[in-house]
Amino acid sequence: MAPRPTAAPAARLASCACAPAAGGAARARPFQPPGARPTLPAMPVVPFVRHDSQVELETPVFRLRHDRASHPVTGHEGRYVVLEAPDWVNIVALTDDAHIILVRQWRHGTRTIELECPAGMVDRGEAPLAAAARELREETGYEAASMRLIGRVAPNAAFQDNTCHTVLAEGCRPRHATAFDPGEDIELVLTPLADLPAMVRSGQIHNGMGVVALFWWLQETGRLDWPR
Amino acid sequence: MAPRPTAAPAARLASCACAPAAGGAARARPFQPPGARPTLPAMPVVPFVRHDSQVELETPVFRLRHDRASHPVTGHEGRYVVLEAPDWVNIVALTDDAHIILVRQWRHGTRTIELECPAGMVDRGEAPLAAAARELREETGYEAASMRLIGRVAPNAAFQDNTCHTVLAEGCRPRHATAFDPGEDIELVLTPLADLPAMVRSGQIHNGMGVVALFWWLQETGRLDWPR
Repeated sequence: MAPRPTAAPAARLASCACAPAAGGAARARPFQPPGARPTLPAMPVVPFVRHDSQVELETPVFRLRHDRASHPVTGHEGRYVVLEAPDWVNIVALTDDAHIILVRQWRHGTRTIELECPAGMVDRGEAPLAAAARELREETGYEAASMRLIGRVAPNAAFQDNTCHTVLAEGCRPRHATAFDPGEDIELVLTPLADLPAMVRSGQIHNGMGVVALFWWLQETGRLDWPR
Repeated sequence: MAPRPTAAPAARLASCACAPAAGGAARARPFQPPGARPTLPAMPVVPFVRHDSQVELETPVFRLRHDRASHPVTGHEGRYVVLEAPDWVNIVALTDDAHIILVRQWRHGTRTIELECPAGMVDRGEAPLAAAARELREETGYEAASMRLIGRVAPNAAFQDNTCHTVLAEGCRPRHATAFDPGEDIELVLTPLADLPAMVRSGQIHNGMGVVALFWWLQETGRLDWPR
């Protein structure tokens, strides 16, 4: 809670009025409140310095640690919780007759039955594409004629360290028996692509990384009409 | 780890070959492995029964509990970790001259400086729109002429109980001094809309809920060209 020694909010505003940042984006020049006298040079955002790190809990889906870290300029020190989780894959699995393969399952986080893209954790040493093929087979019995990585995000950069990959799986056909993990109970829902927009709009599909997967798929296939 | 008493994988496949589910989606009829004799009636996915629940850890961003729950049909019992977190808001904040307001900040989860939509936690008793206006003001000093909710997701239905709301904030103008939380150090990056697609494709913007926010914005403004 130590006050920032060199930069009151008004001074921090001054630091925003600097040269253009990378990527074509320009730093903003926000409103200067009355009495503000910007006198500091530009002060870019910098990484915190981590002093120590302690694992407090292990679960089957993540390891929880606390980092003690401080801001190198202000000296502000805090204790930050981080979940160390394996990477995840979400699969946009399509059939040749214009269906997407979704799954319904009970989710203990939201305590609801969610309708989602097939998804799962990437095993240690496993490639994301291999994980996607395995999860698709285990959860649905389907196998794809072709698969490729089309995007990735940090599911939650604030307190989670992992990456969620999206895999586009095309030409999917049923070829195997399913193989659920203990405690899994999954229902396959073969959904006409034409039904998808309404299911997203209505909130029937609303698990975050599944929505991200659909975003990457539309992006990959040129179906995002960005404003110019 | 008790085996499912009534349904081997092959029998579970049989349960998928049932009547159409809600929403126009039909259950799939997966491949029947040789020797499979589907004899069970349809068995829909059902909620687990929770036996007890224990809070193990409190942090400023979530409360961690363990639920002991079992599948009502198979009897399989497990211990499931859940993060009780406040709702979040992500803000697509636009100016009248075709810029989007982004922020750069150090994130302890990924240990990188992320470029993101302004975002934050919804305070207890606060409406999501009010939280969005507050976070936008605190992080950037901007105020919107109009704001509306355009979508929501479960950030992680598997082990998190909260909702992430997306708010579209239009006509944003700098009106206030920023007010960072202790330990926050945020740089405002006023970005031309025309630069956005390349920044998403290149991974410069890759925090999950920010990508979801862009999805809802494109959806809201009719810019998603879904396959038919």
